[in-house]
Amino acid sequence: MDGQRFWRAVVMAMLLAAWGVCPPARATQADSRPPNLIIIFTDDMGYGDLGCYGHPVLDTPHLDRMAAEGQRWTSFYTAASVCTPSRAALLTGRLPVRSGMASDRRRVLFPDSLGGLPQDEITIARALQQAGYATACIGKWHLGHREQFLPTNHGFDYYFGIPYSNDMDNVSGLGGFRANYPVPQVEYFNVPLLRNTEIIERPADQTTLTRRYTEEVVRKIEAYREQPFFIYYPQTFPHVPLFVSEQFQGRSAAGLYGDVIEEIDWSVGEIRRALEQWDLADNTLVVFTSDNGPWLPYREHGGLSGPLRDGKGTTWEGGMRVPAIFWWPGQIEPAVIREIGCTLDLFPTALALAGVELPDDRLWDGYDLSPTLLGTGPHQRDEMLYYRGTQLYAVRQGPWKAHFITQGAYQGGAPRQEHDPPKLFQLDHDVPERFNRAEEFPEVLQRLQALADRHRATVVPVESQLEKR
Amino acid sequence: MDGQRFWRAVVMAMLLAAWGVCPPARATQADSRPPNLIIIFTDDMGYGDLGCYGHPVLDTPHLDRMAAEGQRWTSFYTAASVCTPSRAALLTGRLPVRSGMASDRRRVLFPDSLGGLPQDEITIARALQQAGYATACIGKWHLGHREQFLPTNHGFDYYFGIPYSNDMDNVSGLGGFRANYPVPQVEYFNVPLLRNTEIIERPADQTTLTRRYTEEVVRKIEAYREQPFFIYYPQTFPHVPLFVSEQFQGRSAAGLYGDVIEEIDWSVGEIRRALEQWDLADNTLVVFTSDNGPWLPYREHGGLSGPLRDGKGTTWEGGMRVPAIFWWPGQIEPAVIREIGCTLDLFPTALALAGVELPDDRLWDGYDLSPTLLGTGPHQRDEMLYYRGTQLYAVRQGPWKAHFITQGAYQGGAPRQEHDPPKLFQLDHDVPERFNRAEEFPEVLQRLQALADRHRATVVPVESQLEKR
Repeated sequence: MDGQRFWRAVVMAMLLAAWGVCPPARATQADSRPPNLIIIFTDDMGYGDLGCYGHPVLDTPHLDRMAAEGQRWTSFYTAASVCTPSRAALLTGRLPVRSGMASDRRRVLFPDSLGGLPQDEITIARALQQAGYATACIGKWHLGHREQFLPTNHGFDYYFGIPYSNDMDNVSGLGGFRANYPVPQVEYFNVPLLRNTEIIERPADQTTLTRRYTEEVVRKIEAYREQPFFIYYPQTFPHVPLFVSEQFQGRSAAGLYGDVIEEIDWSVGEIRRALEQWDLADNTLVVFTSDNGPWLPYREHGGLSGPLRDGKGTTWEGGMRVPAIFWWPGQIEPAVIREIGCTLDLFPTALALAGVELPDDRLWDGYDLSPTLLGTGPHQRDEMLYYRGTQLYAVRQGPWKAHFITQGAYQGGAPRQEHDPPKLFQLDHDVPERFNRAEEFPEVLQRLQALADRHRATVVPVESQLEKR
Repeated sequence: MDGQRFWRAVVMAMLLAAWGVCPPARATQADSRPPNLIIIFTDDMGYGDLGCYGHPVLDTPHLDRMAAEGQRWTSFYTAASVCTPSRAALLTGRLPVRSGMASDRRRVLFPDSLGGLPQDEITIARALQQAGYATACIGKWHLGHREQFLPTNHGFDYYFGIPYSNDMDNVSGLGGFRANYPVPQVEYFNVPLLRNTEIIERPADQTTLTRRYTEEVVRKIEAYREQPFFIYYPQTFPHVPLFVSEQFQGRSAAGLYGDVIEEIDWSVGEIRRALEQWDLADNTLVVFTSDNGPWLPYREHGGLSGPLRDGKGTTWEGGMRVPAIFWWPGQIEPAVIREIGCTLDLFPTALALAGVELPDDRLWDGYDLSPTLLGTGPHQRDEMLYYRGTQLYAVRQGPWKAHFITQGAYQGGAPRQEHDPPKLFQLDHDVPERFNRAEEFPEVLQRLQALADRHRATVVPVESQLEKR
């Protein structure tokens, strides 16, 4: 028994002894109402970027505390190693290759893109909206900036944020790296800030984004408090260019990157505070994760993948394994979860918690994680598919990962290389993917290849939304 | 206020309200007695090898809990990147270059060595023994195996353990790597097990070492419980060859290495249990740290340095920055400490806590950490000297580290290279030492070079103990 439980038990015993009463029946209103859901989705935060994931310098007390009180997952993945497909997967529960949100030519949407998340895809927001949830998206969208693709046309009652990455619309005349590093300027990036479908500021004052996002989320928690709600909060940062509020400037020992992470940590703390203030914490699942690994070429402006290999843009673990914290006081018991999870699972998990049936008109790629979160049944997911664009580069089953193709993050990195036989790594014994075991374990390799083949057979080519311009 | 404190406060308030009494005066016996000290010193455990330092697979609940209840340090160093000099530094509070426990020819002591820790060096054990402490060394010594160098001739009342590394006395006829990996056999290594100065078993049954060490430590806690004591517990593992008790075989998802770490974690849990059983926890400082970074060439039998560069044998961070947990319920408040600390500091810290004056007849290289541990004053150490053998390869001051010389861990690694100007890293911004900033910050480099020069002037060449055979 830990200290807190011990003392709580002592209090309980004393109360019972003193007044001879039973514990008061719990209010049932919260129990009968489906739970609220808040998904906080950072941009380019690496596996090693939080104190509770082993960062030696960054100070993230709010997230560390939520991790200690909830579940901290150590094998949780994003479904793609770059922004647009990663977001599409999280919101739809389907691999980007199924929704047209993947491409081998243009990896994400750009300001000149004409495409976006197709209307026939169902987002978590749409599904929950139909079930009576209030829904808001506050942050970076990046699933199409033409009006029909914006959040308010994808199931969100409300939107506040920037429509694509904060390094786009670069008007500085400087190359990408030089505009972003070492000291970016707000006016270099002519990124619009939207409320619903209207541009309210351009360029967005990026130094205030985290603060304003936070205020918006906190306001929505208050506004929605009498009904079930879903708030999707895709942070703009720590994607470069890095900007922070004045209050956080120079606060972290880890430099500007650290300031940005520490402001995000503050933001999460404010959200928790609002939930507690309105007595909503015990009926709200908060999920915190990242859209992909750290953007390593940006030097000290990129994060850390901790013990994992490589970063953003690759199918190495550092590109796709991300921090993941699930917090729901009273429902989720403190634990470190070492099972495999994926952002694809948030769709079916959200629907299960809301008591909504999964539509049976399409293929789903996620698993319901609620048995693992609530301790009500066996864990569902035991594999992971690592896509780059429309191609399956690697698969994992249990601790084994087969890499059919490897490639550096971007042009200039390691060239694309097909492997026959595939490279085989035992991830639990060899966290940093250093030792190819293909020759020793041909039967494992065969099993993984069969898994990949079975999966490939389910994929029907669709028109890419990312190539339209 | 955390949950535990809150409930404790509630209990206190209720007690006061109900009976109108003051809290009972604390027993003063423990307060007037100097605190006990237990130092647990693992062998080749990497910075990334504990759950609380971000290992994704290893399950170390006892250490994680002690870290959460005590101080977890994120910039704590060993004074050398290999066994013998590292141990000499910890026990004497002096750099190995001063005691002759360093060499550029033979990095550690071997079974054919004639040298050892000189008698005129004062160990923590000797200093505390003279102050009335009972003292025991349980584990791997590696500071000289001839009788005059053994623990019982260096201030320890009692010794149980192996005199040097567990991969020595290799009689398998197999090369070092092959004897150790992938499946080592006890009979390959004709290592003796000693009690005091007598060999009681040879070869030592290494599968039982962790269990037997633990039993010995627990017995000593009981035996010494009425007087102040110092127990130094230098673990044999996770140094290769890896062996575990049957009870732990195959328990960890991380393979044999994981089994070994998890048995060590169990061992620490047993020590805690014994302290609590004898009501000694609030008068005992427990220190847990490692003698150097992970031995990376041993593949899955080596550990992880987490986000740090390289491992054992090098002066990169992964070679010398190690996990460090300080636990002393009621005296040390829970915290993550990001200041610099070093095993050299344990000597002056132990003496300060015991109320013993530091002898003034020699140079000391450590700082008293007790102000930081107890929150009674400013932190003392702001720099770190990185030695390889008798040569100063690098220095750190604040976040800055200058590398005058770099070199791979062993033969076959990166060759020795002198750097002029030195390589300069900002460790807080650039945890993995990727970006040389020497050109940008010449004045920082100058400061670090001056620090190195001032230090070098204090070093007087002495006869090497490691070269005698």
